Amino acid sequence: MPLIPKSHPRAKSLFIREKLVTGFDNGLVAKEGLLAHGRGEAFDYLLGEKTSNTAKLAIKAAAAQILLANLVVISINGNIAALCPKEIAKLANTSRAKIEVNLFYVNEKRKQNIIKSLKKNCVKHILGTNPKLSVTLPGLDSARRIVDKNGIFAADVVIVPLEDGDRTLALRKAGKIVITFDLNPLSRTSQTANITIVDNVTRAIDLLNKACKKLSKTNQKILKKIVKDFNNKNNLSNSIIEIRDNLTRRLSNA
Amino acid sequence: MPLIPKSHPRAKSLFIREKLVTGFDNGLVAKEGLLAHGRGEAFDYLLGEKTSNTAKLAIKAAAAQILLANLVVISINGNIAALCPKEIAKLANTSRAKIEVNLFYVNEKRKQNIIKSLKKNCVKHILGTNPKLSVTLPGLDSARRIVDKNGIFAADVVIVPLEDGDRTLALRKAGKIVITFDLNPLSRTSQTANITIVDNVTRAIDLLNKACKKLSKTNQKILKKIVKDFNNKNNLSNSIIEIRDNLTRRLSNA
Repeated sequence: MPLIPKSHPRAKSLFIREKLVTGFDNGLVAKEGLLAHGRGEAFDYLLGEKTSNTAKLAIKAAAAQILLANLVVISINGNIAALCPKEIAKLANTSRAKIEVNLFYVNEKRKQNIIKSLKKNCVKHILGTNPKLSVTLPGLDSARRIVDKNGIFAADVVIVPLEDGDRTLALRKAGKIVITFDLNPLSRTSQTANITIVDNVTRAIDLLNKACKKLSKTNQKILKKIVKDFNNKNNLSNSIIEIRDNLTRRLSNA
Repeated sequence: MPLIPKSHPRAKSLFIREKLVTGFDNGLVAKEGLLAHGRGEAFDYLLGEKTSNTAKLAIKAAAAQILLANLVVISINGNIAALCPKEIAKLANTSRAKIEVNLFYVNEKRKQNIIKSLKKNCVKHILGTNPKLSVTLPGLDSARRIVDKNGIFAADVVIVPLEDGDRTLALRKAGKIVITFDLNPLSRTSQTANITIVDNVTRAIDLLNKACKKLSKTNQKILKKIVKDFNNKNNLSNSIIEIRDNLTRRLSNA
């Protein structure tokens, strides 16, 4: 990839893309991960490449939900490991969450590369690596059905950044509360999760971390109220309206 | 990539994706091409994954413009070679267009793979392969500035499917009439080209071929009127409105 000039109108998006391509070159990201990232880029572009107030509402609700949980697990795939391993390590620390590697396009070599990269970024305990602890999540055909007995299987809250729709549904059916990051407010993942943060994960994850810190002393009653007051369907509709309004703005500027 | 069931709600999109991934595995498509395809998928999804009447208008204007040209050149990159080599060969035949390979992420091995694949799909003459005929298109930094003296350099009409904005602008500045296929009606390519077909190239290219055949006996005066009556800015605005209307429909179905 050629050097990206900082003056480029979409330099930030190109830097993020470069991280992902490096992740691909280092054997963390699957081909399909590059395609999926491209889809995300398009939605980010339509959303104005910034964190909206709608996304901030979801982030606050997610933080409250995380603080209320008995066991939070962050599910890691190749893209998230390539894009923000440090931030994931921080979030796991703040929220006492466990980290589990769970891949759609499973490949032992790629899994090991992801684990190595997470360890380099100060993630100490990584689940999903011991076949003796593997159990099957019902209702899924893909490799993602294999989960860790002490991780996703036992969790009450699962954070799934950059997820596929089938798994989100399977996790919901298994009684989990699902928090996701998804730039497409129309996707099945977005529509199925309990809390959908419609934002670029590289922007939103630090904000989630800060929100967890900010709410860490808040009492449970207030946290429960934050979660109860959050309506994912309404929030997704607002994100769709934001895209529509951005299109209208572009039309009148044309 | 796992087997795609025909019943999958987005099976067609997944089949197209599979072609591209195969093109990547065969050394035709660049990593960046996978990302770019992902962006296209998102826009196609927002456009309803079908050829709109707006796109059909652009296809008709493009056909008229092709038939009026002295020399048409179709510029080929890795993605287009992977997605529809047969259709490109047919279009070149119908429209007496030349075919030139011109890559953004240049790589001799990849270029040779693309040439081999085009030849396998009955493309006989391929330009952009003889360094002695290379000349430089002004106003471009990327490798795409190198063009064939008898091809893009000499053409009055250049068809650039799946293009980058910088090059479209450079081609326009060089006095070329540019026809492009681009699923993003907001992109610089879309906004800079003379005629933008906002549609998936795998659907639209056959329609363009048919339109060329249908108009092949039409007299020049009528062809000129078709081109003159076509307004690319208005047409792009209509595509943006279509995306907006699709979002509204999704909102009211939610």
